[in-house]
Amino acid sequence: MAGHDALPLVVLTEQFAKLPGIGMKSAARLAYHVMSMDAEDVDAFAQALLNAKRTVHHCQCCENLTDRDRCAICEDPTRDTSTVCVVASPKDIDAFERTGEYHGVYHVLHGLISPMRGVMPDDLKIRSLIARVQKGGIQEVIMATDPTVEGDATAAYLAQLLTPLGVRVTRLAFGLPVGGMLEYADEVTLYKALENRSEMA
Amino acid sequence: MAGHDALPLVVLTEQFAKLPGIGMKSAARLAYHVMSMDAEDVDAFAQALLNAKRTVHHCQCCENLTDRDRCAICEDPTRDTSTVCVVASPKDIDAFERTGEYHGVYHVLHGLISPMRGVMPDDLKIRSLIARVQKGGIQEVIMATDPTVEGDATAAYLAQLLTPLGVRVTRLAFGLPVGGMLEYADEVTLYKALENRSEMA
Repeated sequence: MAGHDALPLVVLTEQFAKLPGIGMKSAARLAYHVMSMDAEDVDAFAQALLNAKRTVHHCQCCENLTDRDRCAICEDPTRDTSTVCVVASPKDIDAFERTGEYHGVYHVLHGLISPMRGVMPDDLKIRSLIARVQKGGIQEVIMATDPTVEGDATAAYLAQLLTPLGVRVTRLAFGLPVGGMLEYADEVTLYKALENRSEMA
Repeated sequence: MAGHDALPLVVLTEQFAKLPGIGMKSAARLAYHVMSMDAEDVDAFAQALLNAKRTVHHCQCCENLTDRDRCAICEDPTRDTSTVCVVASPKDIDAFERTGEYHGVYHVLHGLISPMRGVMPDDLKIRSLIARVQKGGIQEVIMATDPTVEGDATAAYLAQLLTPLGVRVTRLAFGLPVGGMLEYADEVTLYKALENRSEMA
């Protein structure tokens, strides 16, 4: 950043560079872009940051993000509250809602257990999940964490805690992605697809 | 964004999506990330935005970005003020400064002429360049705009304005990039390299 001697621009670049997936070069480009924005637009951006952080919090029931006490899904009387889909992040809820085929409710862990990155069970919203199940009325908990080492480990850990409470604990199916090509499937996926094969009725 | 019902988060996502090179998916990821940041860090980010926009402006002399009246390069008494290198953006100055081989000063246009995108000569910092040359003391103006249609057109336009003022107007050399492979050079670059070939002394 030798091209200018404006310290506030260096500070802004460093702020952008802290965001995930944004390196120093992109951060500098974004900071220069902010300089070319209208002052009102920069104000609106700064206000949106402060406002989102101030007013958005976790749903009392499922830990999804909301600016009310309970999120729209928990408040929806048509949802089946006996089925809880456990996800790592609020954006995973988007994916399920897009299918239009899931009518149960959710629980957001806000992360996955990862000793390598220092994320331990206590850092996740596991306590509130256990409390929900203990309160009764839940018949099935679907583990919808990523099919990765961390996702599998978190699902296994939760299954161990939840099964003794008398609920059915299930895991999303693994297999070939629909529309995918067999020759491009990795061997683990193919093995899972073979293992979990079903009758063609 | 069906996974949550937090309007402030939608607003923040839209703000991120306005930045160059950030689509809706990345914007949503960044907004979710802001939710996981400490409140003080979000404050610092918002303050950096406002502070940069408020305190950083154009150098009175060369239009580079600075938080003082004149930028560090224009204030540096060791720089050769008789040679002016014309660039499109402040980040191009970074590139020249990194070479350590340029000792003249700069002029930042803040864009390139592009009728397609509605950028006309009046939208660029051309008036202040002409005024600098008219004031006297400048012997050479180097056109260091990109070797693109827009960069070439802008350089040609400026050359037409500046040559009658009695200054030498030059353009960066085109040729093979150093360390590049001949077989990967496109035909225009190769043609330019052939045309501008020099004696091996």
